[in-house]
Amino acid sequence: MLMEPNSVGLVEPRLYAFGSPEAPLVLDSGRTIGPVELVYETYGQPNAERSNAILICHALSGDAHAAGIHDPHDKRVGWWDNMIGPGKAFDTERFWVICANVIGGCKGSTGPQSINPASGKPYGGDFPLITIGDMVTAQKRLLDHLGIKRLFCVVGGSMGGFQALEWSLRYPEQVHTVICIAAGAHLSTQGIAFNAVGRHAITTDPDWQGGHYYGTAGPVRGLASARMVAHITYLSELKLNRKFGRRLQSADRLSYDIHNEFAVESYLNHQGTRFTERFDANSYIYITKAMDYFDITRTYGPLKEAFARKKSRFLVISYSSDWLFPTAQSREIVRALIAGDRDVSFVDIDSPHGHDAFLIDIDQLTRTVSAFLDGSQRSQPLESKPPAR
Amino acid sequence: MLMEPNSVGLVEPRLYAFGSPEAPLVLDSGRTIGPVELVYETYGQPNAERSNAILICHALSGDAHAAGIHDPHDKRVGWWDNMIGPGKAFDTERFWVICANVIGGCKGSTGPQSINPASGKPYGGDFPLITIGDMVTAQKRLLDHLGIKRLFCVVGGSMGGFQALEWSLRYPEQVHTVICIAAGAHLSTQGIAFNAVGRHAITTDPDWQGGHYYGTAGPVRGLASARMVAHITYLSELKLNRKFGRRLQSADRLSYDIHNEFAVESYLNHQGTRFTERFDANSYIYITKAMDYFDITRTYGPLKEAFARKKSRFLVISYSSDWLFPTAQSREIVRALIAGDRDVSFVDIDSPHGHDAFLIDIDQLTRTVSAFLDGSQRSQPLESKPPAR
Repeated sequence: MLMEPNSVGLVEPRLYAFGSPEAPLVLDSGRTIGPVELVYETYGQPNAERSNAILICHALSGDAHAAGIHDPHDKRVGWWDNMIGPGKAFDTERFWVICANVIGGCKGSTGPQSINPASGKPYGGDFPLITIGDMVTAQKRLLDHLGIKRLFCVVGGSMGGFQALEWSLRYPEQVHTVICIAAGAHLSTQGIAFNAVGRHAITTDPDWQGGHYYGTAGPVRGLASARMVAHITYLSELKLNRKFGRRLQSADRLSYDIHNEFAVESYLNHQGTRFTERFDANSYIYITKAMDYFDITRTYGPLKEAFARKKSRFLVISYSSDWLFPTAQSREIVRALIAGDRDVSFVDIDSPHGHDAFLIDIDQLTRTVSAFLDGSQRSQPLESKPPAR
Repeated sequence: MLMEPNSVGLVEPRLYAFGSPEAPLVLDSGRTIGPVELVYETYGQPNAERSNAILICHALSGDAHAAGIHDPHDKRVGWWDNMIGPGKAFDTERFWVICANVIGGCKGSTGPQSINPASGKPYGGDFPLITIGDMVTAQKRLLDHLGIKRLFCVVGGSMGGFQALEWSLRYPEQVHTVICIAAGAHLSTQGIAFNAVGRHAITTDPDWQGGHYYGTAGPVRGLASARMVAHITYLSELKLNRKFGRRLQSADRLSYDIHNEFAVESYLNHQGTRFTERFDANSYIYITKAMDYFDITRTYGPLKEAFARKKSRFLVISYSSDWLFPTAQSREIVRALIAGDRDVSFVDIDSPHGHDAFLIDIDQLTRTVSAFLDGSQRSQPLESKPPAR
């Protein structure tokens, strides 16, 4: 077991179910799902008023397991373990940190793999299309259940950043501060294009079978292709170059083989294959669609006006080498917040790690987030200490 | 029939065959192919000394049909018709312009679709892997056959630029001038990565069948995915944005449909499908591999030294919004040429059209190429006028 003093240690995923078939969750599309289950984890303790809650929103392929370990023998920690724990950026000595798997996902929350009450079989391709707003609405139900009236902070990177922004717009009274990392007010045209290629690879894989492939191998080849192309967009050109360059797999000699001759090719193939072992192809489709749909302007009108009505404090963070969500996209949000006379901090972190930097370049992120949360605590003191365990 | 005065008009593809099974073409890999057929076209007339020949090298999905029409009813002209013809950049009143389909291709020259003399069946996946050098070696045989001792100019964009550079290094005495457009001394790591995704999509398509799919539908789904991802890299983000933005296919309302909801998605799907009607999946694999392999430094040593020994005059052209071959890659070549005390002109053309600009942004390209060819003619006058037709 990880005995590091700054680990949250053993954590247990929990399940919250709501929305009976008679009172289902109404989605932005007008369709409904019910019952809805959400898998979530919590780290740290609530204070008496439950005013110290921080909601962590995960990215496309993330899940509720953001920190700690599930089993004493676990070799892997949660995906943002370096950010969540005693004394870390999201300090579990002070905050009650919560992370839930999004609906549409494949990590325990209701998604295409779940049983469709109408058929008694997995939804598969019959799962309704969802939006970032739907994910947030489901999270709101969880927070109501947990007795949280107002989040001290909602935070996320990439698609998690979309959710954080959506929270501030959909439930403005319930959000004290927002941290939006490596995201934007919408996905770029190029981002939609790359998602479209990924979905094309999956849906044209004969093993997809219209999404009704559970119990069979499923479209693992298409999903691997989809992940490969997406993975390229997560890394900067500089990082790809430094990490692989034109290095060959075998003794620096061309083998004149169609497959995997260059190190970068072999790496991507490996990433693609590994992904199919841990992620569901339908969830990939539904979640990338939700990302494509996200568009603050479409839903809430011009950015400036959308944000002007809100009261949250914002921290916006971009990474210099992120070409999936270039810094310009963060600046667009910041300009709108400033124009709307909102309280906003903005940091463009210099990093070679591309879009994935928010999972890797933790030092400056930690300093920035800690300072912002400290400042936010001054503007809204936490009413009481967490109760003793 | 196109009656424009500046069209080369009706052209007829020709075939040149060489390399009997007893005296085959020896490839860079050490493997051999024979017989080898090359489909080519010529525009304009040779002068008496055949010293006015310009070899046009095509890009990945191009072919020998660079200008004019094949049939009076043709609605489409050759792929660089706006650059080749009387009074155009490659002026057929002065120059004898030649374009040949590369080996490994699927437009008439020997490639995976050709009959393997060893089996009496198409090569398919047994076709040997080829290099840019192999393509150039085959072109050299054609030029020998045509009685051309020295090219006045060899020119190409993208993979055509690779071939033009290779010509200057492999046959330095046979090249007076080189025009390298939207290319570089090698493909970037990211470029290899995108090619790898495309090949993964094709080779994991069950219809690929190890490349032995002729007589069946073939891996059209994988090939479409491959083309879609490549197509994104040919366009600039700016152009994608301007052309499609976040426009929806249907009445600006989300239809909550998994397929083709955004205009950019529909466009890419259309491009992918159309490509499968005109291109062979195996050729796509072989030609992208040849692009991955191309690396002047690997073959000829450090760039400066590689170019220092050569005598050609160079024109290097890049496009400001090309992110597949960024301007920096052209600058690298230019710096090496200058360091090697070579005669080089360099123009970075400001364009929103990305990598494809060399097929679209013709005005400045025409001015640049014309001025360069005029200057090159002063340094090596064409000995005689073309004979009267």
